[in-house]
Order: sequence, then C-alpha cells, then structure tokens
Amino acid sequence: MPDKTPEYTPSTTRIEAFSDGVFAIVLTLLVLELRVPKIADTASEADFLRALVELGPNLFGFGVSFLVIAIFWVNHHQLFHSLERANRRLLWHNIHLLFWMCVIPFPTAFIGEYHDHLVPVMLYGFVMMMGGVAFNLMLRCALRSGLVAADVSSAVMRWAVRRGTIGPIAYGIAVVSALLSVWVPLVLYILVPLFYFVPQKIVREELR
Amino acid sequence: MPDKTPEYTPSTTRIEAFSDGVFAIVLTLLVLELRVPKIADTASEADFLRALVELGPNLFGFGVSFLVIAIFWVNHHQLFHSLERANRRLLWHNIHLLFWMCVIPFPTAFIGEYHDHLVPVMLYGFVMMMGGVAFNLMLRCALRSGLVAADVSSAVMRWAVRRGTIGPIAYGIAVVSALLSVWVPLVLYILVPLFYFVPQKIVREELR
Amino acid sequence: MPDKTPEYTPSTTRIEAFSDGVFAIVLTLLVLELRVPKIADTASEADFLRALVELGPNLFGFGVSFLVIAIFWVNHHQLFHSLERANRRLLWHNIHLLFWMCVIPFPTAFIGEYHDHLVPVMLYGFVMMMGGVAFNLMLRCALRSGLVAADVSSAVMRWAVRRGTIGPIAYGIAVVSALLSVWVPLVLYILVPLFYFVPQKIVREELR
Amino acid sequence: MPDKTPEYTPSTTRIEAFSDGVFAIVLTLLVLELRVPKIADTASEADFLRALVELGPNLFGFGVSFLVIAIFWVNHHQLFHSLERANRRLLWHNIHLLFWMCVIPFPTAFIGEYHDHLVPVMLYGFVMMMGGVAFNLMLRCALRSGLVAADVSSAVMRWAVRRGTIGPIAYGIAVVSALLSVWVPLVLYILVPLFYFVPQKIVREELR
Repeated sequence: MPDKTPEYTPSTTRIEAFSDGVFAIVLTLLVLELRVPKIADTASEADFLRALVELGPNLFGFGVSFLVIAIFWVNHHQLFHSLERANRRLLWHNIHLLFWMCVIPFPTAFIGEYHDHLVPVMLYGFVMMMGGVAFNLMLRCALRSGLVAADVSSAVMRWAVRRGTIGPIAYGIAVVSALLSVWVPLVLYILVPLFYFVPQKIVREELR
Repeated sequence: MPDKTPEYTPSTTRIEAFSDGVFAIVLTLLVLELRVPKIADTASEADFLRALVELGPNLFGFGVSFLVIAIFWVNHHQLFHSLERANRRLLWHNIHLLFWMCVIPFPTAFIGEYHDHLVPVMLYGFVMMMGGVAFNLMLRCALRSGLVAADVSSAVMRWAVRRGTIGPIAYGIAVVSALLSVWVPLVLYILVPLFYFVPQKIVREELR
Repeated sequence: MPDKTPEYTPSTTRIEAFSDGVFAIVLTLLVLELRVPKIADTASEADFLRALVELGPNLFGFGVSFLVIAIFWVNHHQLFHSLERANRRLLWHNIHLLFWMCVIPFPTAFIGEYHDHLVPVMLYGFVMMMGGVAFNLMLRCALRSGLVAADVSSAVMRWAVRRGTIGPIAYGIAVVSALLSVWVPLVLYILVPLFYFVPQKIVREELR
Repeated sequence: MPDKTPEYTPSTTRIEAFSDGVFAIVLTLLVLELRVPKIADTASEADFLRALVELGPNLFGFGVSFLVIAIFWVNHHQLFHSLERANRRLLWHNIHLLFWMCVIPFPTAFIGEYHDHLVPVMLYGFVMMMGGVAFNLMLRCALRSGLVAADVSSAVMRWAVRRGTIGPIAYGIAVVSALLSVWVPLVLYILVPLFYFVPQKIVREELR
C-alpha cells in the first residue's frame, strides 16, 4: 500500500510555519488601519495634537488587538510544541482559527472609529470569542484524536483546556454586557488579554 | 562538469516555503477589502446594523475566497509532498498558480461591492477557473516530467488529476451560466469549494 | 578568541529565507493597487465592461511587474544556491536589492494610472534599472569576496554577470527612449522580462 | 516530570523565524504609504514632475525608515545568533520590539505628509526611540537571564549594550530638540541610522 495517500496531512512543523506567517502578517496589517489624519497645512500645532488625540481610540484598539494576536500566537506554539503529529481534521481546525485571526483587523478598525456604538463594540467581542472557540475546538480535537505527545502530562493539557475556555466565555459575557453599557465590554476587552498575559504562575500553582 | 549549472531549480522545500508565504499573505490581505463603513457619529444603532448588513456580501465573499485559497494551499502541499524533485518548468507552473492566487483579492472585492452585476460575477469565476487550470497544468507537468516520488501510487495521482479537473470545469460552467442569471454562478461559487472540502472520502472509496 | 564576534553575518540560508519573505509580500501587495472601480449601482453591464477595460493598463502593469519580481526571485535563488557563505557586505547588497523590490508597487501603480505620461513611464524603468544594478553589485561582490562555492564553474558565473548586465542597460535605454515616445519604453518593459524568461537555452548554448 | 510544561518557550530559531516574517512585512508595507498622486489627465509633464517632487519627503521618509528597520533586523539576528536558548521573558521582550516595528509605517506616513510640523516630527522620533528601548530591554534580559552562549565574549556583549544605548538616547534628544526647530530632529533622524550603518569598525577597534 502506498505510504503517501490523499489523506496525507502536512507535518506539525509545516502547519506551524504557515500559521506563523499568517500571525505575523495579521499583526503587521493592523497598522494599516491607522490612517494619517487629513490636516490643513496651515493648521496650528494644537490642531495637530488634537488630531493625534482623536486617533487615541484607534491607537488603543491597535495595541489591544496586537496583544490578543500575540497571545494567540504564543498559545498556538505551545500547543503545537506538545503535539507529536497532526491529522486532516486538526489542519482544518487550524485554518478555522486562522480565519478569525485574519478577520481581526476589520473589527479593530471599526471599533477604533466608533467605539461608543453598540454594533462595532459587540462585533469586536464576537470575533475575539470566535477566535477563542476555534482555538478550543482545535485543542479538543488534538486531545480526542490522540495527537498529543506521550511525554506531555495530561494535567497540563487539562489545565490548557480549562484556561482556553475562560477567554471565549469572557468575550461572550462582554458581548452581551454591551446591552447594559458600551463601557463594560471595553473594559473587559482590556482585562481578558491581561488575564492571559499576567497571572500565568498563580494558575499554575493550583495545578500541583 | 559543474554540478550547479544555470538550469538549477530550487528544491521542492524551497518552492513550498515561498508558496506558503504567498498563500499566507493572500489569505490575510483579503481582509483589507473589508472597509469600515462611513457612518455619521450621530447615527442610530439601527443605522449601524444596516451598515453591517450592507457589508454582508463583502463578508460572504471574504469567507468564500478564504476557503478557496485554503483548499488550494492544502492541495498544493499534498502535491508537493508527493514530489521527489522539481524542475524549472514546474517552478514556473508554480509561479503561474501563485499569480492567480495573488489576483483573487481583486475580484473578491469587486464581487463583494457589485454582486448583482454580470462583469464582476463572471470575472470572479474566471480567476478561480484560471487558478484551477494553473494547478492542473502544474500537476500534469509533474506527472509528465516524472517528478513524482516512486512510492506514490499512480492511482492516487490519476485520482488527483481527475479531481483537479472538476474545479476549473465547474468554474467555467459558472462563468457561462451567469448569462442566464447572476444567481446561478453565485450558488456554484459556494458549492465548488464545499465539494472539495466535504466529500473527500466518498470519492476515495471509488478508488479502491 | 570568540567565534561569534560582532562581524557575524547571517548564513546564506537565513538571508535567503528573509528575502523570500520580502519577495512573496511584494508580489502579493501589487494587487492592492488594483482598486475596485466606483460605479453607480444603476450602471449598465456595458458601463461595467468599460470600467474593467479602463483598468486594462493597471492589470497589464500588475502582470508585467509580477513577472519581473518572479524573475528576480528565481535569479536570487540561483545566485544564493551557488554561494558557500555570506559576509556583511553581501548582506547589505541584498538589503539594497530588497529596497528596490519593495519600491516596485509604487511605480507600478503610477504607470498603471498614467501610462501615457513621461514621468511615471521613466520612473518605472528607473526603479527596474536600479533593481538590476543592485543585483549586479551583489553578484560582483560575491565574486570579488570569493563567496562562490568551489564547484561552481567560473564560466557559469561570468555568464551570470554578463546576463545580469543586460537588464539594467536595457532599462536605462528604455528610460532615455521615453523622450522620443512613451510607447518605446512601454514595449521594452514587456520585452526585457520576456528576454529573461524565454531564451535561457540559446544563451547557454553559446557558453560551451 | 514532564519535559513540556506550560512554561515552554519557543526555541530561538522559532522566535527568529517569526520575527523575520514581521520585519519582512513591515519593510514591504512602508511602500503602501506612497500613494499615487491624483493628477488631471490633461496635466503637463511639468505638473507630473512637480507632483513627484512633492512626494519627495514621503520618498525620503520611506528610505530612512527602511534603513532603520533593516538595521534593527541585522542587530536582531546578531543578538539571536549569540543566544543559546530563550525564555518566556525574552519572548515577550521580543514581541514588545516587534510592536514598535509594526507601528513604524504610521509615523513614517505622518512625517512624510507633514514634515514641518512639531507633532509628526516628535512622534517619529518617539517611536524610533521606543524601538531602541525595546531592543535594549531584550538585550539586558538576555544577559541577566544568562541566555547568551558561553563562547560569546562578554566584552562583545558589553559593547553591544553600549552601542544599543546610543540610539534611543539620540532619538530622545532629537524629540526634545524639535522644540528648538523641526530641522534639528530631521537631520538627526538621518544621522542616527548612518551611525549604525557606517562606523562599525572604528567602534570595534576601541574594544581591543
């Protein structure tokens, strides 16, 4: 029987390299949504400063989305590092994740432009939630299909699943909370990446 | 005689890495065609929702093109995995394929903007058809030049050729069918990637 | 003495991978200059066709620049394949080449928009000429610094230098010829990449 | 105990490959800020020349930023070449550096458009300064955490730290000097990359 059948799936290295490319491009494309303001050449320095301050929400959205994508990238690597092989199902789960990553620049620009309106604020959280859901589905697929390397402790993987569930739930709550006030989700959009960024060790302690 | 003559062609790994880069960038650039709608800051939430709904065709086109490019990427990998070497002819067939991949964001934006007009609808199918044709020419070149690894069964390769012929034919039919109604090709543009995405196993069964 | 001193230069593989990234991105960015025409939604199909035809020069420029960059990429690989090491000087010659590659989308968009004006037509040829000059300087640097692998025949390298000199000279002539008529350089801009693409073997024959 | 714990950090090779992707994309995206000028089709060649000359500051900013990013890339490689391993802290210092790299196209476009105004001129220097600060923090983290390979002389690393401190200080001075005249920082923005580009050997001499 032939070794190389149509079901062949790219190795984890190949998927990782391709995903790295997408992550790197999405990170960099975010800046294209920062448009140079149109200012009259006769404008005063105060006008320029005001124009820059008006870009504040865009700059802030840029920073937050950058951090979220960076966290997804770090987690993506950690997951793939613990896999010993891939299958076609995982490949498509990964493409699903990359889809939501590629979408991110759009709600980022939208919320940067209109951060005090319900639709862009809810859309932003929805896309982030879907990114988290996609990551989770991929993680569960890896566990179910037995793709995880034997030397990775199952406690660590269970911890990863639990940790990966918090993000999408938090984003889901943020989306719904927008109906109360647009400021609640905006605060949550800052807190969620900080949760993933900062308290690594505390959560790990609990694991022992 | 020198080993490294001007006819030297990059290894399959090198071509694959370069192609991966192009695929990753094209996937990510698609989002740039999703422009944040211009809405008055005094607009109501209903206006915002309407603006988002009006972006519907663009979002849909984004999704479909994303899926098509992802399928091309998966097939590209599968093909290159079964090659044992490359030649200059294959290299240029590959560049031809990448050319059509790079073009895709343009008809995607065009059809997203004017999905009920003949010209953008036909152009979209034409570009997709040419992508399929380019892939097919590359596949046939690989077979004709004996670049396929010895351990790949010829049944599998013949299956790949047959499968790879369906796409461009379907897109060709879609382009012509636009003359009846723009809705026929639009439906076909959704069905063709689904055909490649879903019924893998059924087709394979027949192979035995 | 330390092995890893500040003069360390990235290996040829590293430079190649980085350059591949830049080449892949430039190829893909070209499409962003193809802007969807603004057409009234009430426009007839004939209006749409006319809008597409008006994009003709842009599409043509896109195709020609794509071919030029692809040729640079192929030659870049061939050169790096014949090197056995790199030095800091070659690294910067390579960055110089990448600079002109990155510039290409600008004159491509400019000439696509105004192909019957002297300034964009001359600028296009100038940038292409500078790309060729940068490649040539890199090639000569590799020869002078003895970076070429021992098993590469010097006849092949001399052939590469001669061949690499034709491009910039032809583009230089094209730029000047624009003063006679803008159509002369436009024809030359099509012929030069075809020269590099087609008659490989004829030139090689002469080498023996 | 499992080898692959959640604290796992990507290898230096992986971080380098990802960073290379970001550097390559930022370099290439710079060109997107060069917009084709809108000129009436009836305009004379003199009008076209004038439009190109008016793009001068943009082209100049493009060139300077290209050089700065290229220098960061070269230094980034040199640093990673001398590391023998990475840790999570270094990973995030690297992401911090990439953040400022990704921002660069924005102030480059801003200063290109309004180079005689205080706000864009100061912003440009600020972003460059922060890039330098991020690089420095990463360098110091590598030294403090003992990530540097044993065969790298500590004199070389101390030289790198000293050299890497000059850039951010110079940019800081440039930012403040804008309050005297916008021309002082503009001159400094040209001199700082030239300092890193040119006098390598002189500084090294002093090291012995």
